[in-house]
This record gives sequence, C-alpha cells and structure tokens, in this order.
Amino acid sequence: MDEFFTRINQYREQINHKLAAVSNKTTPESFYAPVHYVMSAGGKRIRPILVLLSCEAVGGRAEQSLNAALAIEILHNFTLVHDDIMDHDDMRRGRQTVHEKWDEATAILVGDGLVGLAYSYLLKTNSAQIKDICDIFTSGIIELCEGQALDKEFENRFDIDLSRYMEMIEKKTAILLMTASEIGAIIGGADSNQRRILVEFSRQLGNAFQIQDDLIDIELTSGKTYGSDIKQKKKTYLFVHALNNASAAMRDSLIHIYHQNTITTDDIAIVLDIFEKSGTLTEARRVVDAGIKQAHAELMKLPTTTARSDLADMLDWILKRKS
Amino acid sequence: MDEFFTRINQYREQINHKLAAVSNKTTPESFYAPVHYVMSAGGKRIRPILVLLSCEAVGGRAEQSLNAALAIEILHNFTLVHDDIMDHDDMRRGRQTVHEKWDEATAILVGDGLVGLAYSYLLKTNSAQIKDICDIFTSGIIELCEGQALDKEFENRFDIDLSRYMEMIEKKTAILLMTASEIGAIIGGADSNQRRILVEFSRQLGNAFQIQDDLIDIELTSGKTYGSDIKQKKKTYLFVHALNNASAAMRDSLIHIYHQNTITTDDIAIVLDIFEKSGTLTEARRVVDAGIKQAHAELMKLPTTTARSDLADMLDWILKRKS
Repeated sequence: MDEFFTRINQYREQINHKLAAVSNKTTPESFYAPVHYVMSAGGKRIRPILVLLSCEAVGGRAEQSLNAALAIEILHNFTLVHDDIMDHDDMRRGRQTVHEKWDEATAILVGDGLVGLAYSYLLKTNSAQIKDICDIFTSGIIELCEGQALDKEFENRFDIDLSRYMEMIEKKTAILLMTASEIGAIIGGADSNQRRILVEFSRQLGNAFQIQDDLIDIELTSGKTYGSDIKQKKKTYLFVHALNNASAAMRDSLIHIYHQNTITTDDIAIVLDIFEKSGTLTEARRVVDAGIKQAHAELMKLPTTTARSDLADMLDWILKRKS
Repeated sequence: MDEFFTRINQYREQINHKLAAVSNKTTPESFYAPVHYVMSAGGKRIRPILVLLSCEAVGGRAEQSLNAALAIEILHNFTLVHDDIMDHDDMRRGRQTVHEKWDEATAILVGDGLVGLAYSYLLKTNSAQIKDICDIFTSGIIELCEGQALDKEFENRFDIDLSRYMEMIEKKTAILLMTASEIGAIIGGADSNQRRILVEFSRQLGNAFQIQDDLIDIELTSGKTYGSDIKQKKKTYLFVHALNNASAAMRDSLIHIYHQNTITTDDIAIVLDIFEKSGTLTEARRVVDAGIKQAHAELMKLPTTTARSDLADMLDWILKRKS
C-alpha cells in the first residue's frame, strides 16, 4: 500500500502542477481569476488518477492519457461550481465557493468556461479514436445533468423508487468515474472487453462509494458530524431504502420527521432505529460489500500489472477499508 | 431576394423540425421539459443557416453540415439561457425565460445540458476533420465566456478602451457566427483560403450587426423603444466611442448622466447630442458601412454560387438594408 501511495502521490502532483496552469491567460480577470482559484483548490484527484491507471492497466503509458485526465478533472470541477450554486453551498474544500467569493453570475460563467477548457484538454489527446473519446465524454456530461435533475426532483418527494434512486446515484457519482476509466482504457489501447471491464469496475466503485458515504455518516463518530445527513433531511440511499422497505407505521414516522422544520437528536435516534429495523443497514452494507467484491472481480479479469494492483488499492482506499 | 427567402425559410423549417426533437428523452422531466421548451422557441436561426450556406458556398451539400448547424443553434441557446439568468431578463421571444418559468437551478442545469447536447450533434458530423471541427467549436465556447465576462466587467466601468470594447463584441456576438461559418466551410471541403474568407465575412457581419443594432435604437422610431439602451445605461458602442472621443466637458456630462438612478427624456436628448457632436454617430455609420463592404468583398472572392448570393442577401437582410 505504501508503494501505491507513493505512485498516486506522484500522479497527483503532476496533475496539480498542470492544473495550476490550466490556462495561460489572465484576462478577462473576472473569468480567469476564479478559473485559476477553482483549479488550484486541490482535492484527491481520484478521477484523473483513474484515467491514468485505466490507461496503464491495458498496456498504455500514463503520459498518453494525461490531457484526458486533466479534462475529466476540469469537468468534475465544473459540476462542483454549478452544483454549489444550485445547492446554496458556501464552502468547498475549506474555502469559499465561487458564487460566495465572487457572485452567482461569475460562478455560472466560470462553470461554463470550465466545460470549454475541459474539451480543449480532451482534444489534445493524440488518439485515432478521438471521436469515440469525445462521444463518451459528451454522454457523460448529459448523464451528469440528468443525475443532478433527478436528485433535485427527489428533494421534494417521498415516493422514490429504489431503482430510480440507484439510477440517480449512478448518474451523479459513478458516471464520471466510468467516463474516466473508459477514456483511459481507449487511450491505452484496450479491446472492447477490457473497456467494458474497466467501466464496470468504476460503476461498482462509484455506487459502493456513494452508499458507503451514507453509512459513514451514521456509523463513524469522528470526522463527519454524526447523523448530519438526517439532520439535513437528505434523501440518502438509507432513507429511500427504508421508505421502500419499512412497515407502514415506520414509513409514516419517517415522512413525519422529514416534514419537520428541525430535526432533534431524538428524531435522529428514531430514524436510525427505523433504518435498523427495516433491514436497511444490513442491506446497505451488503450492497457495498457486493459492489467491492464485484469491482475486485472485474479487475482480476485484466492482466497482472502494477496498475491493476494500484486500482485494487484505490478501491480499498476510496472505500475507506484502508488508509 | 424572394428566392433567397424561399430557400432560407425551407432551411429554417428543416432546422426547427429537427430541434423540436432535440432529444428523444422526456425524463427526468425537470430537465427535458425545459430543454424542449427552449429549443422550440423559434428565432431567426441565422447561425445554423450560416453553417449550411457556408458549406454550400465552398461546394458541399447543406445536408452534410446539418448536424453541425443544429449544434451551433443549440450552443447559441445555451448562451441565451445562462445570459438571461446573469442579466436578470424575464422574457425572451415573447415567453418567460427558463429561470422565470422554472427556477435558477433548473436554468443553470438546462444550459449545461444544452452544451452536452450541442456536442452530441456536432459529433454526428461525418468528416475526417472532426477533431478540427471540435477544436473550433470548443474555442468558440471559451471565447463566448470571455466575451460575456468582459461585458460584465464593463457594466461598472467608465474607462473602457474602444479596442477592448470591440474585442468584447467580437467575442460576444461575432464569434458564434465565425464558428458557424468556419465549421460549415470545413465540412463543405473548403481550402484554407476559403475558410479564412468565410470567417472574415462573419466577423464583419457580426461586428457590423452589433453596432447597427446600437444605431437602430436611436434612429428608428418604430420597433424598439427609442433610446431604450440609454435609458438602461447600456455600455453600447456609441457610449464607449463617445467616452473616448468627446470633449472633457461632454465626457463628464455623459458619466454624470450614467450615474443617475433614472434617465429622463431630457437626458436622452443630451446624450444623443453628445453622440452627434463627438462624431460618434458618423463614425458608427462609417464602421457599419465599412463592415458591410468588407463582408461583401470577402464573398466576391468565393466562386459564383447560389449560396454565395444567399450569403450576400443574408448580410443585407440581417443588417436590415432590405426586408
């Protein structure tokens, strides 16, 4: 695992170095100052690293996919800037969000510009399959928008079908990981089978990660504030699963609590009890474990390489099984 | 001219027919309902028609460039949806803007999705030069963002350099026409010279159109409300030119008036008088005429075709010399 961290830290530094110079322009300042602000904010850089490792896992050199990796990370940051406006979030990575530090018009414009910059990096990729690569990237954007729309629709609803909810988290969280893997795989020269394997790996990774994140909120006492999702009445996997699987009485109780203006510590305890009794926690843990197992199984279908081992370590790292 | 209108009406109908079915999806409804609303709003469809005519003018068939034409129009609509939020505009083409009819979050998301849809149409283009085409389209997006940023920066400033202002209108207005022409030309098989000619044609067309629009606001008594730009204290070409060319006393007077909360009919008369005395109106008319002449001259360098004649008629039509 140490070697894994050494390698991905090197990748991350390389990515951060490139992103700090995402454009050589500084004017118009009202556009480029926030662009540089966003792109120098740091982050785990999971998505671009996934591009590089996917490329290597099928026999390519990471270097070949570097521009595409940067494109994916720029695109990810576009979604963060616009989602922060939509969700009225003031802080991100310990700093003010763009619409807070500047204003909403600036944040809208900067997000738009990041999409353009993302494509400009993607198009630097030297590949005979550049059209395919652009197609996948473009589908990714459309699905991200669909995912965000579904998420917003669910905010005010209590009749959420679990499969529709899973569709939402796949589009909101997994799709960009899947796009990252698929593009990395193409650049690395993957055959159609390897390409499918890496997409499936990322789908499982993304979906497991999202549900794991919901579980961490109620399982850990350190880090994230305990039960903060419930306090914010978020439509998590746990909530939606319980809605669909709890008894009628428990369901009514859940809906009643989520209609209140404020959620007390007692309410949180009641909700957790329902999550327990409806089998939600057991099922959530089962789904996360099944996802991790499936993701690992996909990797095992690839040739034995350092990159494959790194992808396996990445899975464990992201899913917080190791640190 | 009748034949010109017959032909472009046919093109427009074909474009509208395709745009009415911009996506075959209807869910998530909160995303696709406004997408369809925007794309069925009509409009002159100048940009996509420019793609088709540019393609034909260099020997291509309009049909080859239809998907790219749709891409350009979808991209144009993305800018309208986001600009309307930034500019707090409630109405567009006689209907509520997206953020008014739905809400801001929806309008942000729909604009984002339109960028994705625009690329998805562009990528349907069957051309060996698809990478070039995507490069030009992508540069267009970045420049549009720069133009919008400059425009916003100018809103609160009075030290606006005229050449910087011209850069802004070129990026805000002309760039998408230039992008349309260049992509149409490439698809039609243009050589590098023809490509440059058509880009230059559209640059002249776009810049002349923008300044003409400013002149119409103070010259016509029908249609647009007389002097409405002054009433709204818009930083038009006329205002910026006068700022740069009027006497110190007139300049102070202009700045004084544009600092007032409300602009009276008397103020409008004073501003117009300054536009007249500073030579601004004469210069604006000269620049428009020079642009039209230059655009015509560019066209004359192309082979004699129906499309070339249509482009010449389009120039006259857009610049309201004929109707």
